[in-house]
Amino acid sequence: MVAVDLGGTRMKCGLVAADGAVLHRETRPTPREAGGRAVLDALLETVVELSQKATADGHRVRAIGVVVPGVIDAENGTVGAENLEWVGTPVRAELEAAIGDGVPIVLAHDVRAGGYAELRQGALTGTTNSMFLPLGTGIAAAMVIDGSLVSGDGWAGELGHTRFVHGDAAEQCACGQWGCLETVASAAALARRYGARTGRTVDGAREVLELLAAGDPDAAHVWDDALRALIDALVLYTTLVAPTRIAIGGGLVGAGETLLQPLRDGIHARLTFQREPEIVAAVLGEDAGCLGAAVMAWDRVTADESGDQTV
Amino acid sequence: MVAVDLGGTRMKCGLVAADGAVLHRETRPTPREAGGRAVLDALLETVVELSQKATADGHRVRAIGVVVPGVIDAENGTVGAENLEWVGTPVRAELEAAIGDGVPIVLAHDVRAGGYAELRQGALTGTTNSMFLPLGTGIAAAMVIDGSLVSGDGWAGELGHTRFVHGDAAEQCACGQWGCLETVASAAALARRYGARTGRTVDGAREVLELLAAGDPDAAHVWDDALRALIDALVLYTTLVAPTRIAIGGGLVGAGETLLQPLRDGIHARLTFQREPEIVAAVLGEDAGCLGAAVMAWDRVTADESGDQTV
Repeated sequence: MVAVDLGGTRMKCGLVAADGAVLHRETRPTPREAGGRAVLDALLETVVELSQKATADGHRVRAIGVVVPGVIDAENGTVGAENLEWVGTPVRAELEAAIGDGVPIVLAHDVRAGGYAELRQGALTGTTNSMFLPLGTGIAAAMVIDGSLVSGDGWAGELGHTRFVHGDAAEQCACGQWGCLETVASAAALARRYGARTGRTVDGAREVLELLAAGDPDAAHVWDDALRALIDALVLYTTLVAPTRIAIGGGLVGAGETLLQPLRDGIHARLTFQREPEIVAAVLGEDAGCLGAAVMAWDRVTADESGDQTV
Repeated sequence: MVAVDLGGTRMKCGLVAADGAVLHRETRPTPREAGGRAVLDALLETVVELSQKATADGHRVRAIGVVVPGVIDAENGTVGAENLEWVGTPVRAELEAAIGDGVPIVLAHDVRAGGYAELRQGALTGTTNSMFLPLGTGIAAAMVIDGSLVSGDGWAGELGHTRFVHGDAAEQCACGQWGCLETVASAAALARRYGARTGRTVDGAREVLELLAAGDPDAAHVWDDALRALIDALVLYTTLVAPTRIAIGGGLVGAGETLLQPLRDGIHARLTFQREPEIVAAVLGEDAGCLGAAVMAWDRVTADESGDQTV
């Protein structure tokens, strides 16, 4: 199985066996500055070369899994992804033309693929109602409801763009709305808000977390804002769809219990009649998207072999 | 099919044919003041008498559908419903004992059953991602996601108990939380808030709507608060699960376009990247719960006959 997690800056690639074993790993740059066509060409070249490597190593490529940070039209195999300058880009058709041989192509959303990997072999194993919430440059959710990963025709899961900051405190988000969760609780927001508050430039959320640990009051301020919005978001999600477990991922979960315990305490204090979810750390880290692509591709192969075309 | 929508004040009952035709309708009081055991006895008596009537009229009772305003444990057939003083009440077992003959019993949540009826033969027909949102004494949502009605183990859909009023304006909800949608946007809240604001007693939301139409500024004030919270809630729901259609039901939808057009305008103004849903009125009115009970029961019979036990 050839699996590629195509991000805005890097492509995380792998050859993955049916049992989930990663036989080969590599990372390549995403040539985003060169435009959407260049990104697509780089993806095609990567998939072709990885397929050749798999064959040379004595493996048979059964399917190709590619995850992207965008909205996928499952029927037509096209992708819209602002970050990659893709608008209705025919990714599946181009991959099919480049690979040939009728190898099945599976396209999936990056966060949903990561959630699927966590569901199948990570922190959400055994759950039927749960959520994977990576707090990285942005925030999106992979929602598991009644045993299935939710798609919403490719649109679902934008918890990062729901409003949890109100009144004068709300900042405008890159999406055009005001007060989105992402404006205070993403890793990028922590660094940006600390910088805006202090006039100092920090090396990402990691440095804000170090300052927080050292007792810096400005770091504590932006951290508390993030926690408050996250607790609001998790309480709302719990009330609406009753997950039994929520796995937090992305860069911010590097803070460990400094992040998780206040979330647990805050949620516990707020819930009245609802079913209380466990709050845990995601376990697959940066590999989640790539593993998810591979698991989804394996599932497709299994479904095709059993004659089930509904996956 | 015997169908009963067991509410806090009334039981709406029906005999429903396979094609959805209602062969008989009646309404009985729910003896809530007499306690949970009395409510259960009244339900059992009603179901037995309706079954006898069906038989006397020459019909065969294929299944019993009962919808309740509570959390259903599908595995054990027990129900928790604060309004009925039911705590882990073994409703399915009692119905089976009262009816006998191995007639299948289907228990469902009232709002979800109403949403299922709207999905199968009402305002949500043909949708795969949509929501039925009745604004009545309380507020809860029936969520259709990726083609299925969401259950969340019986817990899902409590949109009425998510927070959309902030700061000093937030009132405490009956659920114990503060600023719930239900505290400003339910039919009960409109009447209560108008009364609190003016010191006058009104005859429910209906009178507040009449005052609104007559230009009463206090009615306009509580109405605007309701609209603002509803727009927030619908924008959030749209961002999270991308419905293509939202059907508003319950008493407040009697306001018609006075309610629906401001919701459409407010949502349109707020969305930036999201898929915009149609906002329509639910069409099945007070019959929705009872019809939903019947449709679910018919589906069970059909599934049993085809050997599929998964419904």
